[in-house]
Amino acid sequence: MTKLGHVLTRVRASSRELALLPEAKIKAVLKDCAIALKREQSAILAVNQQDLSRLEPASPLYARLELTKEKISDIAAGLKQIANLPSPLNRILESRTLPNGLKLSRRSVPLGVIGVIYESRPNVTADVFALAFKSGNACVLKGGKEAQRSSAAIIKIIKKILRRHGINPYVVELISGGRSEAQQLMRARGLVDLIIPRGGPGLISYVRDHATVPVIETGAGVVHTYVDANVNVAQAARIIDNAKTNRPAACNALDTLLVHRAQLKNLPRLVAPLARSRVIIFADAKSYRALASHYPAELLRPATAKHFGREFLALQLAVKSVDNLDEALAHINRHSSQHSEAILSADKQNCERFLAEVDAAVVYGNAATTLSDGGVFGLGAEVGISTQKLHARGPMGLSALTTYKWIARGTGQIRR
Amino acid sequence: MTKLGHVLTRVRASSRELALLPEAKIKAVLKDCAIALKREQSAILAVNQQDLSRLEPASPLYARLELTKEKISDIAAGLKQIANLPSPLNRILESRTLPNGLKLSRRSVPLGVIGVIYESRPNVTADVFALAFKSGNACVLKGGKEAQRSSAAIIKIIKKILRRHGINPYVVELISGGRSEAQQLMRARGLVDLIIPRGGPGLISYVRDHATVPVIETGAGVVHTYVDANVNVAQAARIIDNAKTNRPAACNALDTLLVHRAQLKNLPRLVAPLARSRVIIFADAKSYRALASHYPAELLRPATAKHFGREFLALQLAVKSVDNLDEALAHINRHSSQHSEAILSADKQNCERFLAEVDAAVVYGNAATTLSDGGVFGLGAEVGISTQKLHARGPMGLSALTTYKWIARGTGQIRR
Repeated sequence: MTKLGHVLTRVRASSRELALLPEAKIKAVLKDCAIALKREQSAILAVNQQDLSRLEPASPLYARLELTKEKISDIAAGLKQIANLPSPLNRILESRTLPNGLKLSRRSVPLGVIGVIYESRPNVTADVFALAFKSGNACVLKGGKEAQRSSAAIIKIIKKILRRHGINPYVVELISGGRSEAQQLMRARGLVDLIIPRGGPGLISYVRDHATVPVIETGAGVVHTYVDANVNVAQAARIIDNAKTNRPAACNALDTLLVHRAQLKNLPRLVAPLARSRVIIFADAKSYRALASHYPAELLRPATAKHFGREFLALQLAVKSVDNLDEALAHINRHSSQHSEAILSADKQNCERFLAEVDAAVVYGNAATTLSDGGVFGLGAEVGISTQKLHARGPMGLSALTTYKWIARGTGQIRR
Repeated sequence: MTKLGHVLTRVRASSRELALLPEAKIKAVLKDCAIALKREQSAILAVNQQDLSRLEPASPLYARLELTKEKISDIAAGLKQIANLPSPLNRILESRTLPNGLKLSRRSVPLGVIGVIYESRPNVTADVFALAFKSGNACVLKGGKEAQRSSAAIIKIIKKILRRHGINPYVVELISGGRSEAQQLMRARGLVDLIIPRGGPGLISYVRDHATVPVIETGAGVVHTYVDANVNVAQAARIIDNAKTNRPAACNALDTLLVHRAQLKNLPRLVAPLARSRVIIFADAKSYRALASHYPAELLRPATAKHFGREFLALQLAVKSVDNLDEALAHINRHSSQHSEAILSADKQNCERFLAEVDAAVVYGNAATTLSDGGVFGLGAEVGISTQKLHARGPMGLSALTTYKWIARGTGQIRR
């Protein structure tokens, strides 16, 4: 067995102990971790400087990797918030007595061991541990190598708290190494129950292609908003502005605006607020004509096929004119990544048709897709936004990190 | 695009129409299919004879492939039963109004397109169509080539009924071809939402290794029953007999009996009923000594390592003596396929420890593992018994073939 194989075997064993830990203990450990991370922040910051010294300050990684006192306070606050959430474990999801007298109940339990593969933000290290631990799961973390020392410093502090509470410290393991270790982790069937990639589309598709352990995919969002013939233009303009500019790098940000041809005359008003944020618009022929001499020329470009079905993650927007709701639905069903889709319309019937016919994790009538978020949805902590259909779809709370088991209490029942 | 690619594209399109079909129509179609299959049974039987004529009557496939009037009646009865089940669709799983006024609800919807890869039983063809259709899913069926004509005859009749109801007949497609087509089906990301293999362990592991579409694994059962120190021996003997002999080829059948050493003296009574069914016992040294001169010598053999952690699917049983509950739990956690596991004990504390600590889809106290079944559990039709932790675990009803979507009805809400 490889060295990593031995580590994973120990993590698996620790996960069986963790599954039996009382809720109050889990809460206490997370709170103590928050306190310890703040108390030992100077040690973390010193090690973070070592990681940073290996990067050019101009590197785009620099800002993501850099920790500050404020960021450590945020990490600690995150741990406390997760500590205080209701436990997703030991919920009786259903129960009944069968005609033969067997007492059957379905109870939520941890998945077991979760592997998380992520990029260079060291704050993810603490965040993922807290989400996994709160839901009774051991976790194996494979972060970016640029952040390895910073992440190791955080894990060292967490393990100290675990030991103080008499908990097997293998419930969290940070692994190093390159692609070979990452692949071994995603193929450790029987030792690892779930892999979650957290990062860009390259990382996600790499994990999807190589994993044999089940994967939850998160975060790919090709997001559309359709402006119907009959619409409150001022409200629509506010929603479009928010959907595009509130967090342009987030997966729930608007990518393609579809406009009913009857609203082409109002298109300049619909997109006017975007100019303030210097949003570049890629417009199809009809919407280009509608916008020319209204939208700043330096921000207006003709659209080509490559601009549709594309996630920009930037202050860029594709705009397309459609003849009717059917054409909008066909465009969305063809190009959507099934994350979040919206219709803006004063016509109730059209709204309901859109909500029924669009196949996506979240469908909106007259609201901004930026609302797709675990916190906004009231799910407590957000594990991610799933773009798959199995297990969990859309914003995932802690319950997405649990499975269930059927518990059957009998008095001698057999099968007839 | 390949020919199969074109078919899958049309199936995907048909699934969008199917998702909008009213519940009453789905029910009516399934009932009409049941009537039509019975009415046209002579055509099906004639074609089945053609399939059978290609096999040796002595082949083990023969009985599984052979259709009779009785089997067609059973198929029709199965369709009617599924027709009458409550629809798993359009259930409001939760709903709330957010502080900003957004009305949010989570509603069950079909997965979309389900691919099923199975072996030579033509009755699976009708059964899988009915389960998929009842849950609003289009399905693509890849059956064994020995049953190809029989399955095609069944699908032809079903499609006639679909057309009569004005439903796109692409909602069910039977595909032929070899491994290359099967692989194309399991890698059709974006066109197929789920693959379910139905068949033996070879088929299941082949699909698991080659699929990039999400898979639900069903049916691998390495099943244990532990007899504790303090137990009702007569009741335990009945449960063991039922667990092993009720349906020995089923995944929920007992494979390994673990016996507390204090019960070795009662082991002859515990396994006595098994001799009537000619069950071969592979016993470890201590249990062999306890059974010698009690259990028929021609049915008693010494166990080796290969007999533990093995699914027999036959009238064979491994028996092992353990010193205590801890040893039993360790053995189970090492060898279990996490399907169904049982403890037989008069000690409540030990029962509860077993139910909490064993990580399996179904855990039993004082009952037979043969009860692991969708019908027995009251789930209506059984889609299979999942041995995985994500999405669905244990006996799966129709709701395992659904996902959900979040529907958000707004009045101009944006993200702050």
